[in-house]
Formats: sequence, C-alpha cells, structure tokens
Amino acid sequence: MTSTTVHRVYNFSAGPAVLPLPVLEEIQRNLIALPGVGMSILEVSHRSKAFESILAQAEADIRALANVPSNYRVLFLQGGASTQFSMVPMNLLGSDETADYVDTGSWAVKAIKEARKVGAVNVVATTKADGYSRVPGQSELTLTKGAAYVHITSNNTIEGTEYHHPPDVGDAPLVSDTSSHMFSGPIDVGRHGLIYAGAQKNMGPAGLTVVIIRDDLLQRSAGKKSALPTMLNYAVHAENGSLYNTPPAFAVYALGLVMKWLLDQGGLAAIAAVNQRKAGKLYAEIDRSGFFRGTAQKESRSLMNVTFRLATEDLEKLFIREATAAGLDGLAGHRAVGGMRASIYNAFPEEGVDALVSFMRSFEQKHG
Amino acid sequence: MTSTTVHRVYNFSAGPAVLPLPVLEEIQRNLIALPGVGMSILEVSHRSKAFESILAQAEADIRALANVPSNYRVLFLQGGASTQFSMVPMNLLGSDETADYVDTGSWAVKAIKEARKVGAVNVVATTKADGYSRVPGQSELTLTKGAAYVHITSNNTIEGTEYHHPPDVGDAPLVSDTSSHMFSGPIDVGRHGLIYAGAQKNMGPAGLTVVIIRDDLLQRSAGKKSALPTMLNYAVHAENGSLYNTPPAFAVYALGLVMKWLLDQGGLAAIAAVNQRKAGKLYAEIDRSGFFRGTAQKESRSLMNVTFRLATEDLEKLFIREATAAGLDGLAGHRAVGGMRASIYNAFPEEGVDALVSFMRSFEQKHG
Repeated sequence: MTSTTVHRVYNFSAGPAVLPLPVLEEIQRNLIALPGVGMSILEVSHRSKAFESILAQAEADIRALANVPSNYRVLFLQGGASTQFSMVPMNLLGSDETADYVDTGSWAVKAIKEARKVGAVNVVATTKADGYSRVPGQSELTLTKGAAYVHITSNNTIEGTEYHHPPDVGDAPLVSDTSSHMFSGPIDVGRHGLIYAGAQKNMGPAGLTVVIIRDDLLQRSAGKKSALPTMLNYAVHAENGSLYNTPPAFAVYALGLVMKWLLDQGGLAAIAAVNQRKAGKLYAEIDRSGFFRGTAQKESRSLMNVTFRLATEDLEKLFIREATAAGLDGLAGHRAVGGMRASIYNAFPEEGVDALVSFMRSFEQKHG
Repeated sequence: MTSTTVHRVYNFSAGPAVLPLPVLEEIQRNLIALPGVGMSILEVSHRSKAFESILAQAEADIRALANVPSNYRVLFLQGGASTQFSMVPMNLLGSDETADYVDTGSWAVKAIKEARKVGAVNVVATTKADGYSRVPGQSELTLTKGAAYVHITSNNTIEGTEYHHPPDVGDAPLVSDTSSHMFSGPIDVGRHGLIYAGAQKNMGPAGLTVVIIRDDLLQRSAGKKSALPTMLNYAVHAENGSLYNTPPAFAVYALGLVMKWLLDQGGLAAIAAVNQRKAGKLYAEIDRSGFFRGTAQKESRSLMNVTFRLATEDLEKLFIREATAAGLDGLAGHRAVGGMRASIYNAFPEEGVDALVSFMRSFEQKHG
C-alpha cells in the first residue's frame, strides 16, 4: 500500500467531511475482499453472516460509545436528515396533537416545513431575530402542554451554533437532529425520545442515517403501520433489525470502522477534550484582534462548525482563494449565509487547525 | 497494490452482488485520495466541482448506454425499490384514478401493497396460480381504460422470470421495476414512462436507486409538491439535479465506474450477448438429464437469476453446502421459495458459470 504517500489536503468541508485516515486505510486494504469472506464489502449479501456481524458490531459499538439504554433501538436507515424531517411527524404526531419545534436556523426551518405538511406545529422559540446567532435559553421556550414531542436541531451546521446541553422539555419526548455534532462528545441518550443524524458529517460516508428511538415512540410508530409507506415506518425497520430492505451495506461498514476508531481514541469524553482544544484554538484566534469576527454568540458556539467573517466580502473571497491554494480546502461558508466556515469534526486533524490558525495570522499581517 | 493475489470466491448472490474486478481495483487505488482532489471520494463535498463532475459523467454514461431520449430525466435517489413502491403511486396516481399492476411474484406483491395504501389499484394479470413460473402474455392483460399507469416487475429476482420485451400497455405510461436486470441488455426507454432500479444488483453497491422518468410524469409529480414529503417528490429531485440533499456520493461514484466498464465492454448489446451465452450454458445443464429442474417456464426464463430445484430438500441442502465449500457462494434460493438460485449478473465471470456447470455434473454423478 502506498496510501501514506498520497497527497491529501486539509478538508474543512461541512459534510461529506474528513474521515480518520486509519479508517480509509483499512477500507482500502480490504476493498477487493474482506478477510475470510472472499468478496468485497461492496458485493456481500446483506443476508450473509459476514454482513450481519458487521451490522451487529456497528450497533454494539454505538451502544458502548453513547451508553445507549436498553429501552432504545438503534436503526440504520437511508435518506438523510431530510427524510427524518418527514418520518418524525409521520410516525409520532397524531391528528389531534401538536408538535413543538425550536427554530434555530436553516435546517430547523426545513424540519418545520415538512412537519407542517403532516400536522399541527407550534414554533416554541426562534432566534431568527438574532440572525440565528445563538440557541434559545430555557426560559424562552413556551412549550405546548401535552405536545407530541419537542424537536430541536442540536447543532446548526450553517449558523455555527450548538446546544451544549439539551433543553428541559418536561414530559414531552425530546427529538433531536444531531447530524452535525453526533458523537463529538458525550450524549445523554436517556434525555431524548428520538435522536437522528445523517452519517456524513461525523460518523461515516453519505447515504446512511442513524436513528436512536425509545421503545414507547416505536409503539406509536407501530400503530401507523398500515397508514404509512412501509419504508417510512420506524417500527418496521426496528422489527427487522434494519434489514427490512437492502441497507447501504458499505456505509454501515465504514461507520462501524469509525465507531471502532472512536473507541480507540478513548470514547466520547476523550474526543470531546480534543474537540474543545481544537475549537478553542480557532475561536481564540478569531477573538484575538478583531480582524476576524465570529458569527455565533459565545455561549452558543459550535465546536464542530466554526463560522467567521471578515470586514468585506471581497476580503472573504480572497481569504478563501488563498487558503484553498495553501491546501486548506472547503472554508467557504454555506451559500445561504456567506463568510467562512471551518468544519472541524472528530476526524479533522489538530495539525490542520494549527495550519489554519497560522494562515489566519499571516493573512491578517498581509491584509489587516 | 496486491489486489490480484487476494482470494475471491464466485459470488452468485442475488444482490448486493458481484462487481467488475477492474472497478473494485480502481476504487481501491484511489480510495485515500481521488487524483487531483486530495481527498477520498468518501470525504468529498457533494457541492464540489469534483463530485459534480462525477455525477454528471455517471448520468451521461447512463444516457449513452441506454440511448435515453432527451425528454427523460435520470435521478439518483436513496431507499431502493422498496421506497419506489410508494413514490410511484404517491407521485403519479390521482385520487380519482386507477393504477394497473401486473402480479408476477414477491416483489410485485410488495409494490401492489404499497400502492393500495395510496389509491385505487387494479391487478390486471397474475401468474400466481402458476406459482409465478412465468410472466403473463399480452392477451392476459385486462387493462383499465385511462389507467394512471401500468406497473410491471420486469425481472423477478426470486422466481427467476423475466420479460424479454415489455408488454404493450396502450396510452398508459409503463412503469417498470427493472432492479434485477437493469442494463443486462438493451432497454427501450422510450416505451416507458418511468423506470426504477436499485443499484445493488447490476449497477453498483447498495444504497443507490436510479430512476428514469419522462417529463410529462415529472409534471404530475410537480403538482403534488406541497402535499408530499419533499424527499419523496420526483420533481424536487429533478429540479435539483439529484442534489436536493446529500446524495450517496460513494455509490454514485462506484455506479459511474460500472457504467464506464459497461461501455468498455461494448455497451448493452455486447453485454446481452455475453449474458445469453452464460445463462444458455446453465439452462442447458439444467435441461440435460432431468436431475435438475428449472422452476421458470422456458419462454420466461431470466438471464440474470437462474432458479432450479433437486428432487428433495435434503439433496438441495447438500448441493448448496458442497458448492459453498467448492468456492461457489450464494446459491441458496430466496427463503420464500427455497431451492437454488444462481444470480449471474453482468459482472459475474463466465468462468464462474463454467465452474458451476462442472460442479453440477459431478454432483449428479455422485448423487444422481
């Protein structure tokens, strides 16, 4: 294998995003044939013992990493968070019920839009007036009594904000779109009713969605079996161990390797310490002189998606162009908001953060 | 790379299934970093120029291979044929309309079940009474006047039957689930309204669905935009060039390599000749002595999934066990029907067919 000599850039992309190099190397090594199986992971039947063992191990490692209580199922689905925006209300929202949503940015708005197609929605807090520069505090939530569930977007990829602790939502099940910070640190699964995340930011390649759902919500879902498209029913997938239809087998395999890598790093508390250090370096540089301006309010800053601006859009374009030329790729902010965004997920190497900090300093010296 | 020395078995699995070895080798070679990109295909942003070019090339190659007319869109979706079972009626079946379905086996039954959740369904022919051993002839179709569409399952993976020519369905759009024989030979796209296929049998890895849809059906779909979950709306995906949400980027890339390999083989007519020769050898052996019994009637025999039986289930178990030990893997029939099934897709090597024929002869000599 000549992999370690291959030229790789620093990939600050918001997702699909950087994966751990040892994971890529293991995928490469066994790509033609899994050891002892005689065929590629791309060719192996989803009904084979080889794949069943890969699936079971991925689930076991997720359970070990996040200490998932026994009354929760882990599902491997397709369609990304965008499909979850519909599945959540279709499975959990009754015709005489209301679902509470917290509006913290672009993805929350999409989730709300899909839920409104299904039933009654109450937006219980929004930080739109603040340009989504923060997540709302506990006192701002005007929860509906008896809500079917309360939905939050726990990390806002585009706006660079994050809930550092989930809000208290009383008796209603908390449903959280954790796509862009899943497993960036410890997560208290027991405080949630349902957690969903597209894999392609912090867990693996695109094309796989992880759902962790509590048994009582699966019961609700089971009651809707005859009404819903089978593929959109959580209960069907749970009853079939995520093998109702052909799963995205390769993505499950790759995610499993990432979970194993996370365990090797020491688990979620250990990776959280690394993430705090990495983000801390970047925010310190942003705050140092005023040349750069962070867009998120300090108490809501995301450890995964660090968003910042320069004085003018021309200067921002220059920054992104020169950074790309220096091997710092994917720093343009989302097209909806502009500016810069450094996505520094679990697998993003600390040397890359150091390289960006150096680049920012020299850019300021030249243009400040 | 040491890939060619890796031990590989003959993989007769019905899907996920064997892929061309040169495709696996190219994936392996570039797994750590795509040439000129500096990151893995597993890490590259779906909004990057690199990925946009991969997606555009995959579509262009599909269009070239199947001579797709300009009034058809090619979509790359998730969720497999099982999701299409719902999307087809949700997008194409009006509340005052009827959809015609032809019942040719297990997958057709599932498609009918999902359509019935959406609207009125007329099963216009069934070969259930014949144990699904054939597809119905033209004269057996009692089509509904003004049907929204007519749905067929053009290759029945479990029962080993195949339409060698699509039926004439008059003015109604023909919708075909071609999952298990897509691109096994020429396909007259212009005779269809919509074609869908899970990639994991004859086109690439699991986790990707290809849909080819005619513009007038996209119009119907556009009219349902506000009513349907956005992710289940064909028009949304078409308008966004299959980039409404994060696509399964790796699977699109791998499918693109398979399409390129197919073009290198000489295209669909050339691969059809190979497939006829491969299936011909196997059916000739099945028909030779009466020791083996083909389950599909001769005029409906699938070139992709060759199903056959032995005199007793005990003998079948022995056959499968001994074949597996001899490096002929995945020959057990689907659990719903039992017996044996040799899936010999495009990428299945002719030497593997020869090896199976030899094995069948020696098995007959020992046990016949």
